[in-house]
Amino acid sequence: MAKKKIILDLDTGIDDALAIAYAVADPAVDLLAIICSYGNVYVENAVTNSLKILELLHATNVKVYQGRSHSAEKAKFVRMPVSAQIHGENGIGEIDLPSPKMKPAQGDALDFFIEAVKKYGKDLILVPTGPLTNLAAAIKKYPALVDEIGNITIMGGALTVPGNVTNVAEANIQQDATSADQVFRQAKLTQVGLDVTLRTLLTKKETQIWRNLGTKAGRKFAEMVDYYIKAYEVTSPDLHGCALHDPFAVGVAIDPSFVQTIDLNMYVTTDEKYYGRTIGDPSRLSAAKTNVKVAVNADVDRYLKAFMEHLTTLFKNN
Amino acid sequence: MAKKKIILDLDTGIDDALAIAYAVADPAVDLLAIICSYGNVYVENAVTNSLKILELLHATNVKVYQGRSHSAEKAKFVRMPVSAQIHGENGIGEIDLPSPKMKPAQGDALDFFIEAVKKYGKDLILVPTGPLTNLAAAIKKYPALVDEIGNITIMGGALTVPGNVTNVAEANIQQDATSADQVFRQAKLTQVGLDVTLRTLLTKKETQIWRNLGTKAGRKFAEMVDYYIKAYEVTSPDLHGCALHDPFAVGVAIDPSFVQTIDLNMYVTTDEKYYGRTIGDPSRLSAAKTNVKVAVNADVDRYLKAFMEHLTTLFKNN
Repeated sequence: MAKKKIILDLDTGIDDALAIAYAVADPAVDLLAIICSYGNVYVENAVTNSLKILELLHATNVKVYQGRSHSAEKAKFVRMPVSAQIHGENGIGEIDLPSPKMKPAQGDALDFFIEAVKKYGKDLILVPTGPLTNLAAAIKKYPALVDEIGNITIMGGALTVPGNVTNVAEANIQQDATSADQVFRQAKLTQVGLDVTLRTLLTKKETQIWRNLGTKAGRKFAEMVDYYIKAYEVTSPDLHGCALHDPFAVGVAIDPSFVQTIDLNMYVTTDEKYYGRTIGDPSRLSAAKTNVKVAVNADVDRYLKAFMEHLTTLFKNN
Repeated sequence: MAKKKIILDLDTGIDDALAIAYAVADPAVDLLAIICSYGNVYVENAVTNSLKILELLHATNVKVYQGRSHSAEKAKFVRMPVSAQIHGENGIGEIDLPSPKMKPAQGDALDFFIEAVKKYGKDLILVPTGPLTNLAAAIKKYPALVDEIGNITIMGGALTVPGNVTNVAEANIQQDATSADQVFRQAKLTQVGLDVTLRTLLTKKETQIWRNLGTKAGRKFAEMVDYYIKAYEVTSPDLHGCALHDPFAVGVAIDPSFVQTIDLNMYVTTDEKYYGRTIGDPSRLSAAKTNVKVAVNADVDRYLKAFMEHLTTLFKNN
């Protein structure tokens, strides 16, 4: 079977690093490139972190592009203090990795992505796990991409549970609700939101397995994810673990049977009071077609098994 | 097959009247009683309207009880002006029906309901289509009812679409979020909310069919529902019809296959800013059991066919 060609769009913090590891580890995947975004960190740091993680995993054939540095609505991006609290000042849990030898890919990130859509069409999967600024800009530049691309699976939003920035807004969407609204109205996409990512939890039991491997990747990832787990103990003590937001979106993009979905036409609220809420559009409830599949339940055990198998095997060899 | 024993809990406005008609018309149903609530109208008017509709339909064997007159949170209930706009000053679209000859049933509504649960157990279905004040009070009085009753199917709330009173709150839940929260946390229930009721729409084409029957019930129901459709033209011009909120809940209570549901543990927000929102509980996402089935999609065509068959047959003979 041909490998699935994937481009990730990341704001590389800790769970983004796990998303990279999952895509690199899954033998069914050909990870073409990472487009970077602002969000958990500034876009320049997302680039550096992505390069560092790829080098740690010896996946130096993956291209890393620098995408948009701020929301379509604003002149610049200012990192939220809570992002440093959750992901560390450096975005990867304060782990120390050498300055990358790899260089970021040259050329415009959006042009690269659009050319990849034209080249690979239905064989291409895009997984944005940060703000949807890059994707909305690419759609504006090349509207046909929404029909030509094979699959867009995002980590973002919350439909059946409260948000994590406000009661109605999840962090990725809340960074740029205008771009998110354009994507939700125009693209065929699968939404992997807090509805399901808060169910896929990792604990120190799993990171200890990686540490025990005795490899550099095992140790570094264990250290990084322990930082994330510790942050969750403060922000979400109910959960008893850290949520695998971004790597779960990658898992679902590759194998949609990890989730139960519902079909819905949606929009993203840009009004101040409910800013960043992803919600069904009452005016299109009776429309003949729907463009969003919202993940509302997950086969957690099976995913966690796949996640640990993939990542542990990868870290064993790196 | 034994008939399904149903008790309705109504704040009898127009769609509540349609719910009565559906329950009376369905040959699979034995409608035991109507417990009345405040909401679309004051509780006394809900009683009078229920009696009038039952007499119009010659269903005078159905008992009508007066339940709670106001929210558990407040000392009294004040009807919202929009309720008169949607349901008419008299709650039933200003149609003129004779003062009822039937009297309300004597005795306490909650005691009657609790005795019915003890008597019929799993054979009993409760369908509340107004505030959940009566049900929460009954659970408080007799907690075992949540395990003993066969089925509770409510019309209320909105999970995947915005509310109709605020962006997050649906009218029934918003009347008494505290009682609703108790019910959502304690009872096994099916939520038939705006998610699906905004998909089941009736137009003047259907009411004309009833008017053409030439019967009193056909004419009165056509006149009443036309009032409702006209109100929807003002409040929800996108919909192109009126929503069959309450009769759809009755339909789903009788035949759950009319809807696609998702399993979720939920609560109702009582904080001022998001008051009355029905939403998944993040702290119980990974719980082994769930107690709410939320209707998220509907077999609209099949339901509307059943609805028109039942009601048209009923109105033909009355």
